[in-house]
Amino acid sequence: MKTLPLVTIIEVQATAPSLHDNTADLDRLKNGVRALLSRPLSERNLCIPYKCMGRVAAAFRAGGFRGYAVLSILPWQLDIIDFLPEKTDYLPALALDLGTTHLEATLVDLLTGKTLAHGHIVNRQIEFGTDILSRIHFAERGGDGSGLELLQRAIVESINELAGELVSQVDIPVQEVYALAVSGNTTMVHLLLGINPYHICREPYIPLVNDPDPVLSSEIGLELHPQALAWVLPSIGSYFGGDLISGILASGLDQAEHTSMLIDVGTNAEVVLGNREWLIACAGAAGPALEGGVAKMGMRAGAGAVEHVKIDHDSWQLKVQTIDNVPAVGICGSGLIDLVAELYLARIVDLRGKFQDEFTGQSPEQRAFVREHLVDLDGEKAFIVIPLEESGTDAPVLLTQIDLDAMMRSKAAMYAILTTLTGQVGVEFGELERIYVAGAFGRHIDPRQAITLGMLPDLELETYKGIGNSSLHGAEQILFDEEARLRARDIGQKITYIELNVNQDFMIRFSGSRFIPHTDPKVFPSVPVFS
Amino acid sequence: MKTLPLVTIIEVQATAPSLHDNTADLDRLKNGVRALLSRPLSERNLCIPYKCMGRVAAAFRAGGFRGYAVLSILPWQLDIIDFLPEKTDYLPALALDLGTTHLEATLVDLLTGKTLAHGHIVNRQIEFGTDILSRIHFAERGGDGSGLELLQRAIVESINELAGELVSQVDIPVQEVYALAVSGNTTMVHLLLGINPYHICREPYIPLVNDPDPVLSSEIGLELHPQALAWVLPSIGSYFGGDLISGILASGLDQAEHTSMLIDVGTNAEVVLGNREWLIACAGAAGPALEGGVAKMGMRAGAGAVEHVKIDHDSWQLKVQTIDNVPAVGICGSGLIDLVAELYLARIVDLRGKFQDEFTGQSPEQRAFVREHLVDLDGEKAFIVIPLEESGTDAPVLLTQIDLDAMMRSKAAMYAILTTLTGQVGVEFGELERIYVAGAFGRHIDPRQAITLGMLPDLELETYKGIGNSSLHGAEQILFDEEARLRARDIGQKITYIELNVNQDFMIRFSGSRFIPHTDPKVFPSVPVFS
Repeated sequence: MKTLPLVTIIEVQATAPSLHDNTADLDRLKNGVRALLSRPLSERNLCIPYKCMGRVAAAFRAGGFRGYAVLSILPWQLDIIDFLPEKTDYLPALALDLGTTHLEATLVDLLTGKTLAHGHIVNRQIEFGTDILSRIHFAERGGDGSGLELLQRAIVESINELAGELVSQVDIPVQEVYALAVSGNTTMVHLLLGINPYHICREPYIPLVNDPDPVLSSEIGLELHPQALAWVLPSIGSYFGGDLISGILASGLDQAEHTSMLIDVGTNAEVVLGNREWLIACAGAAGPALEGGVAKMGMRAGAGAVEHVKIDHDSWQLKVQTIDNVPAVGICGSGLIDLVAELYLARIVDLRGKFQDEFTGQSPEQRAFVREHLVDLDGEKAFIVIPLEESGTDAPVLLTQIDLDAMMRSKAAMYAILTTLTGQVGVEFGELERIYVAGAFGRHIDPRQAITLGMLPDLELETYKGIGNSSLHGAEQILFDEEARLRARDIGQKITYIELNVNQDFMIRFSGSRFIPHTDPKVFPSVPVFS
Repeated sequence: MKTLPLVTIIEVQATAPSLHDNTADLDRLKNGVRALLSRPLSERNLCIPYKCMGRVAAAFRAGGFRGYAVLSILPWQLDIIDFLPEKTDYLPALALDLGTTHLEATLVDLLTGKTLAHGHIVNRQIEFGTDILSRIHFAERGGDGSGLELLQRAIVESINELAGELVSQVDIPVQEVYALAVSGNTTMVHLLLGINPYHICREPYIPLVNDPDPVLSSEIGLELHPQALAWVLPSIGSYFGGDLISGILASGLDQAEHTSMLIDVGTNAEVVLGNREWLIACAGAAGPALEGGVAKMGMRAGAGAVEHVKIDHDSWQLKVQTIDNVPAVGICGSGLIDLVAELYLARIVDLRGKFQDEFTGQSPEQRAFVREHLVDLDGEKAFIVIPLEESGTDAPVLLTQIDLDAMMRSKAAMYAILTTLTGQVGVEFGELERIYVAGAFGRHIDPRQAITLGMLPDLELETYKGIGNSSLHGAEQILFDEEARLRARDIGQKITYIELNVNQDFMIRFSGSRFIPHTDPKVFPSVPVFS
């Protein structure tokens, strides 16, 4: 079956008006379009929105009552939003992953399915707060809505800038971007729409809206085509946003016969478990350390980020690989996991997640390696990954005990989230067909190392599948396929969300996970245990 | 069956959110509303428009998740446009007859069906042109849309002022007017929407739109409730507007088993013939003289307008009745018809529509009466209706030969229109069940006198029924009843429109009608003929 994009083009060839056919211009256009529609579109209400009546009518006349009608496709309605006298080679639309820290977008062509451009940008709201909580507090500033307005303006400006960059890559006017699909967490969606996020972070954690109706992008200040729809993916709850529904769309979790799992680590760790029959989800604060947001040398996966680390147990050499092979400037999430797993296997980090200088059976080479890399820094131990002289920045790249502690909390939280979720429905990890790992985390992570740390379950490595920025991919699906738009709403209706903030089970599992690999090493048979 | 108004109120009692029910506020409201809907409304898409999300959500929370949702009812969609924490006693909406010269409106209560207030105002566009044609030309001024913009602003300001007057009569804030239904001619609708009327007056006379989709009144600058819909009645063609569709609604012509006729004399004379099976219509310039817009002393039916005239053939006294019984200041359309009919019966106007001083068989009293009233004015004859000393203005109220000529053209056009229309479908006047006469013309006219002049067909007087401002009444029906909204569209689809501007038959009939009562007096058996 042909998929229905959010915007499409229909070639209309109407006869010119005469004394014997005095149908008005826009009614003539509608009749022409209606005659070309088949089910299910022919059953929908066909509208020409007020704001574009003049423009559409003028173009229709200029084209001699022939040309190409641009239609926005809503599940219950079709809007004629423009009329092109000449055939166009492309029909651009923007898919956007609206992250708290970063925005990532693709400009796609709805005619060919091709990606025209791709880019990302820092979320300008960072100026007003680095995390969701501080943004919500900033939105309340003054109590007069001015904080919220500033935040909305900042995110709108960020999107406008990013859209501008993308269209300039392919030399298309931004006014020819005919639609936008937005995938973001619940708070970011509220801030984009300029609606009050106050209750999101307050018990019982209720968003103002989970499933907003489509809005005109121009109504929120976006500079795309004036009638471009902004289709916002629905959220499930305060801590479970449209970005994860996007992930479910992209992974196809909701359509699979067998149970699989989806892990998305952004600012939060969000996890979904399920199949075409049922879906269960939860989210928790396992993210920051893994995303590189907490560790002192932490950074987003980008040029110069330490991505892979290997400690050779024969030569006792430290091998470090950075993204783009440029001098190291920091450590990204996957690099951190790699590093800590290697340090554990080299026994420089013990099962409690603490640096140790000495242990029984240490060889002289090993000892020399430790002496070279493990230093004392203001009374705290720190592991030098890259010394100052080889660093791409003005400091050595290192891992402190504080970073390590944060990392241990994150990995414990992650495993506790996963086991709490499977525990809720009585599914064993071994029964999972696949574990999809989304995001930069999924792209760069070595599941073997995450298993070593006890962060991910001890399964065959083939079970794990990185799916990239699934939030963005889901937004792309929204643009291309009405079925995805309807699936997104269905997922919202179907999914059960577990609130971890009030979950006793989670707290117990969290405590049990604060060792490497676990207090109960039997659940990680493939990981060596040093006592 | 209960009728569906354009706006309604639904009492919602939702449970408050909790950790076990984290449905977002607006989704909770929608669920609450949806649960209360039955067919056909339950099958429609339920939306909360972007612009009112914040306001609605805040009110819903403030009311403890209980209160009254205000819904706009579209044929395919329901919009929650407001939320009232407290019960309201009224739900005001505005019905508007958007005339070229005058605007007339009622403020109705959609809860009780009552009329809350009524008023009228001069169309401020008159500053830019008195008739439709001059407005269309003004709209083109400069070629940059600025003329059109001025006209739109003028009409919007007129409506805002009229709405303000009406709400102040009943002390209701104008922001609590939740809907507007507009009934106007095609050009006025174009000017209200600010869309180009250029082709309306140019062959082949094609409007830009006949059936515009509903628009938010705030989008065109109206100061009602920010989400109040403006429902504009559809037009059929350039010279056949929503005002006449309103008339068809108000008369019920489209639902009657037997054939009837509707005559609406405004700036144009618009006539519809038909029944529930078929409708045929035409329009022509028969109006101005009848509406009082052409005659020197012509005026709209209002205080001081000469409304009825009687010449007593015994005492040879002229009896004049004015509206509100105040000193005369002019002659309205019905007064003009009365006057000319009486002058014809007194043989002071001959069958060609010319004043005559003398004729065979004239009595001395008659002659004295003529000498007293028929004067010479700058070489033209004029009949003094009210002498200067009894006039309510600084001049006598009189009828000149020029006025009389205009009147003759109008009456000829009217009868020619009626016969052309019946001729098209082979219906005899005698077959008509009823002739509805709309407008001030219909309210004040004496059909007997119009028959004497040969303006209306020579039928039993009971056939004629005045239905007042049917354009306004139709707009009221639009507010109260979805069936009327759908009927209006159906009428637009069903009606056949005859273009008189290019109709040979009409021109022949027009020539034949330029005598009193007609060149063929046999078609007016009840009217005396003087030779």
